Amino acid sequence: MSQHGASGNPEPKSGPPIPTGSSSPKMKISPKLNRWSMGRALRSGGVKLDRPIRRTDDTHCRQPTEAKETDEDDKKTSAIDVEITAGKSIYLISDGTGWTAEHSVNAALGQFEDYSVNRGSSVNTHLFSWVEDEEKLIEIINQAAKEGAMCFYTLANPLMSKSAKQACDQCGVLSVDILGPIIEGIASHLGVSPSGLTRGAPGTRVKTLNDAYFKRIEAIEFTIKQDDGTLPENLSKADIVLVGVSRTGKTPLSTYIAQKGYKVANVPFVMGVEPPRTLFDVEPRKVFALKIQLVVLQAIRRTRAKTLGVDTQAENNYSGIDLVRKELDFASRIFAENPGWAVIDVTNKAIEETAAVILRLYHDGRDSATSVPRISQRY
Amino acid sequence: MSQHGASGNPEPKSGPPIPTGSSSPKMKISPKLNRWSMGRALRSGGVKLDRPIRRTDDTHCRQPTEAKETDEDDKKTSAIDVEITAGKSIYLISDGTGWTAEHSVNAALGQFEDYSVNRGSSVNTHLFSWVEDEEKLIEIINQAAKEGAMCFYTLANPLMSKSAKQACDQCGVLSVDILGPIIEGIASHLGVSPSGLTRGAPGTRVKTLNDAYFKRIEAIEFTIKQDDGTLPENLSKADIVLVGVSRTGKTPLSTYIAQKGYKVANVPFVMGVEPPRTLFDVEPRKVFALKIQLVVLQAIRRTRAKTLGVDTQAENNYSGIDLVRKELDFASRIFAENPGWAVIDVTNKAIEETAAVILRLYHDGRDSATSVPRISQRY
Repeated sequence: MSQHGASGNPEPKSGPPIPTGSSSPKMKISPKLNRWSMGRALRSGGVKLDRPIRRTDDTHCRQPTEAKETDEDDKKTSAIDVEITAGKSIYLISDGTGWTAEHSVNAALGQFEDYSVNRGSSVNTHLFSWVEDEEKLIEIINQAAKEGAMCFYTLANPLMSKSAKQACDQCGVLSVDILGPIIEGIASHLGVSPSGLTRGAPGTRVKTLNDAYFKRIEAIEFTIKQDDGTLPENLSKADIVLVGVSRTGKTPLSTYIAQKGYKVANVPFVMGVEPPRTLFDVEPRKVFALKIQLVVLQAIRRTRAKTLGVDTQAENNYSGIDLVRKELDFASRIFAENPGWAVIDVTNKAIEETAAVILRLYHDGRDSATSVPRISQRY
Repeated sequence: MSQHGASGNPEPKSGPPIPTGSSSPKMKISPKLNRWSMGRALRSGGVKLDRPIRRTDDTHCRQPTEAKETDEDDKKTSAIDVEITAGKSIYLISDGTGWTAEHSVNAALGQFEDYSVNRGSSVNTHLFSWVEDEEKLIEIINQAAKEGAMCFYTLANPLMSKSAKQACDQCGVLSVDILGPIIEGIASHLGVSPSGLTRGAPGTRVKTLNDAYFKRIEAIEFTIKQDDGTLPENLSKADIVLVGVSRTGKTPLSTYIAQKGYKVANVPFVMGVEPPRTLFDVEPRKVFALKIQLVVLQAIRRTRAKTLGVDTQAENNYSGIDLVRKELDFASRIFAENPGWAVIDVTNKAIEETAAVILRLYHDGRDSATSVPRISQRY
């Protein structure tokens, strides 16, 4: 396995994210930090949270050298260490909600799914939102140093962002500025400077109650009212209609897509029950049929039945392989009778993935100026 | 106003995101691209979408020099240009869902809210998801060059990411790698290499049906069933209970928080109607009371009444200033009688902001190892 060092702030210019198999020559490496970081990772990744917490007014940092001593401590108390292992820590620091940092880092963590399996350790993220004064920022970064955590930050205020970078470098804490490069890119593209205001700042608040906001609220409320086949007379008012048998994820999908401002209705297909006539009056390109592999659906229904604590007979009626197959066949027949509906396989797909597939198809051909489908939005 | 150039990939190391008032000396600038980019921005930001689309097998790029010629064209046809102005284009390219790029860029665009007002122009984002082969990638980047767009990309596959960077530089398209630096940082921190697999790839799919997934689905379904005060007997099963008068955003808030895996119930406070007894049996730290400024609530209710198309009398009963005030007073009294409830002002706050405030308070003191509240998650 290749080992990669990194500067406090990795250079995007160093080609691909991680040139697997070889270390990137372009990256600036603090050897001490690197040895230390690697050292921790190569053991169980244990971070002792029961280490005495310093006074919050303490502005000193644990330096890489101290860190190596801490490594020694860890080795001595490895038995305890295993018990209290909290995994590797990742700090997310924001002067706003922190959702951007959380979303981006979660996505990136998808690239390290085997880590916990192979290392018998876990990764813990710690989100610090509305960190709007420097004192608090420094306190958090000091704590990150104590925990051997790395820091990701999204700070709209350029001065705070600069302080974060400086403090992290000073404390030997690996750090990445998530928002900075994005804002910088947009500023160059538009030819204007960013406001530097956090989302909560007075100047920006008035923007929240605009048409898009009300449209979104309306979409969410519509979607909830339509859930699970209720009010079939309103199907024509939906932007998107989802159909499928129980446990194909219609409800979570509906609410996820509604959050993006689309009115979603979903109609459950139940063995032997005819769907409402109004469904077949809906413009076919708006209807998305969810299919799923038999065994996977049965597994999901088993889990569901356990959660509901239903009796064996009821469970068999719900997750018995023959009945599940019959219900899927019943749904497939209706799908086949409506060739205008897009059929989407949700087998082992996360809600976000299926939502992306549906919205891509929904927008396909309408916004596209190329042969490649795109989802366009105006700001 | 300061003008900023940028390389194809701005260096995070160049201090704060945008050193407002002065251009960053560290940034590498393609002067032609910069003049061109600035030139477009300083006009109405018009991008002619009716420009003839090249054949999709065309792998040539419009170079900055050609771009300047295009500027000339635009000037000549400025009248038409104004009519067909589509604003500045931002391309979001992903080999997955593209939600990370969308989320991050939307957040960054919050720094440029005055742009459309001051320039009489808009910004358009174009999301391209599941771009998994190089040919498609190059086609999209060529189109970006034609539209004078910039590119943000989140490509898990290092080779694709490298190709994107090279193609953008070649085409004189400003580009920013969003995911790369984050993955690189985590890889260094954990001391392991990323999988390089896109989320849809076989290796990663099986991970989607884990406990966290089922917990999240359950939370969403619970939340929808509990919406608007239904099933008060289940309030005790909720992680979070929201209370407030109509139009304080209880429903969208509930579904947003539910998406993050929390069971949310909401109870509407209606003038003169006693809330369900079970509400007062709920652990107070789980209850969040939503307050809002009188005039803002009235404005929201007016909009709502229009949407519903109710008659004047009904509208007055709903958004009449006296009745709105009375209802808010009624709610405030109940809030005051329950000092254990956190009271949150949702006035002019976006759903995401209020959700962040609530979850921060919810986790405060439980996960915190410092005096600064944090939201912690294990992976």
